[in-house]
Amino acid sequence: VKRVIVTGASGFIGRHSLRWLIERDYAVDAVTRSGTGSPSAPEGASINWHRADLHDPAARRDLIAAIRPTHLLHFAWCTEHGEYWSSPANLDWVATSLALVREFADAGGERAAVAGSCAEYEWTGGDPLSERGSRIAPGSLYGVAKDSLRRVLAAWAGDGGPSLAWGRVFWVYGPGEDRSRLVPSIAVPLLAGEPARLANGHLRRDYVYVEDVARAFVALLDSDVQGPVNIASGKAIELGRLAERIAEEAGNGDLLTVDADPGASGESLEIVADTGRLNREVGYETGVELDDGIARAVASWR
Amino acid sequence: VKRVIVTGASGFIGRHSLRWLIERDYAVDAVTRSGTGSPSAPEGASINWHRADLHDPAARRDLIAAIRPTHLLHFAWCTEHGEYWSSPANLDWVATSLALVREFADAGGERAAVAGSCAEYEWTGGDPLSERGSRIAPGSLYGVAKDSLRRVLAAWAGDGGPSLAWGRVFWVYGPGEDRSRLVPSIAVPLLAGEPARLANGHLRRDYVYVEDVARAFVALLDSDVQGPVNIASGKAIELGRLAERIAEEAGNGDLLTVDADPGASGESLEIVADTGRLNREVGYETGVELDDGIARAVASWR
Repeated sequence: VKRVIVTGASGFIGRHSLRWLIERDYAVDAVTRSGTGSPSAPEGASINWHRADLHDPAARRDLIAAIRPTHLLHFAWCTEHGEYWSSPANLDWVATSLALVREFADAGGERAAVAGSCAEYEWTGGDPLSERGSRIAPGSLYGVAKDSLRRVLAAWAGDGGPSLAWGRVFWVYGPGEDRSRLVPSIAVPLLAGEPARLANGHLRRDYVYVEDVARAFVALLDSDVQGPVNIASGKAIELGRLAERIAEEAGNGDLLTVDADPGASGESLEIVADTGRLNREVGYETGVELDDGIARAVASWR
Repeated sequence: VKRVIVTGASGFIGRHSLRWLIERDYAVDAVTRSGTGSPSAPEGASINWHRADLHDPAARRDLIAAIRPTHLLHFAWCTEHGEYWSSPANLDWVATSLALVREFADAGGERAAVAGSCAEYEWTGGDPLSERGSRIAPGSLYGVAKDSLRRVLAAWAGDGGPSLAWGRVFWVYGPGEDRSRLVPSIAVPLLAGEPARLANGHLRRDYVYVEDVARAFVALLDSDVQGPVNIASGKAIELGRLAERIAEEAGNGDLLTVDADPGASGESLEIVADTGRLNREVGYETGVELDDGIARAVASWR
């Protein structure tokens, strides 16, 4: 029996992962700090929900001892929009994640997949970012924290620790997203007949639909691929074009203002993933095209 | 008032740091897991000893709340000879160190100095290892753990965290050293009239006397230098010559066997520090020459 503990299970990506774990015959133990249940859990599916503060060592150990998972899918992290980039809570999540993976392995856990970030890479643009070729030089405390956690876990995995995969998530969008993030920050006002504004419309980023991200993580967990794997679409879209596509679905396109300042320096013009590892080694291809994903996301906020 | 909390205070380096902290007018709170007191504490000096398991969050927070330190000198880590290179306890120490520094800063702590290691560098030999020019590519779980801790703390220090210095310690020797380490593993048998053997006598390493290391850390803490600083002598000695020097002091040199295999690959022939930052920015020069340090160390085991 494959028994997986999912942290951040009611979070943006986590909630979408549950049905795909069940589809792959995992017994699912879902951990959340606050709520229980999830709108994305399939009808009638058996999910054991646990409410626990992972920062609490006693609660964490009780959880592992009660579940005795063979697999770990670790999404939980600080994600307060706009604040998580430089929040000292990143230190807490490095510490708690190390403890969690160690306790998981000590209790017989075999295989873990942990959520990393494209923020681990140096963002100087140019070629698609690849796990083996691109420079790691995070420009934020969040990126450094994720990268440093990965370094320790990977070194341990190579020296007696559990089998470990690390999914580097690019720009995720879709139903369940925090309303302050880019896609809903345009869609929700337009749906309500209110003005919406986008900065940096000239930038190009790799946007990927949340359900694809969740499915890719489940495929990654279920594989024996070791180390970092980009979780992305492999395609960059100009943010201005993304905003227009949202307006096509939400209506009230005349209330949308797109600012662009191609001459401004600082932010890299294009950041896109090389998805070769995900496609060929994990065997997962993202399936939801942007046009369709935006339609679904906007429908969820209607 | 400068009030410093010293972790690992009865450890090899920590115990030697106390007198120099007092000399620089610090009120000293010394934390140890097991014992209390220290043979190196000056007579009559006022040191508050605390027995605490730093891995225990409640004990750690009680300690910080009771002491309210302005300064932190963090030596504690797993140090079991031969095992610490790949022990999963390294994960625990990364987690505990992050929590400790965060709690220290949250309680008003201003300045921390943390013990790092030359094991953070890539050991391919060649030029002296420098903080700004040399490649960071640790070859062990221990080195990765120290390096990753440093990355997170440095990113935080640059983004709202406390003032932080990081001392990269090279090969330390001297009184109080674990008997299984290189210098006592030769000196103690020879003193007892028993045979001693050294492998890899052809390698050259940067050996530095423990009291110099402790004094350098205190100088580093008392400075406003940020980031990594090599704590070393800046001079490499051939291990075979080091063993001969030990035998000169301990006697029974005829019982010493030195193996050397200059043709063997794998270990870098010479690893030595560039001590420019320590000397010029911190203003500390190591003062105990190897001939003298070996004499003192051997005398301590006689």
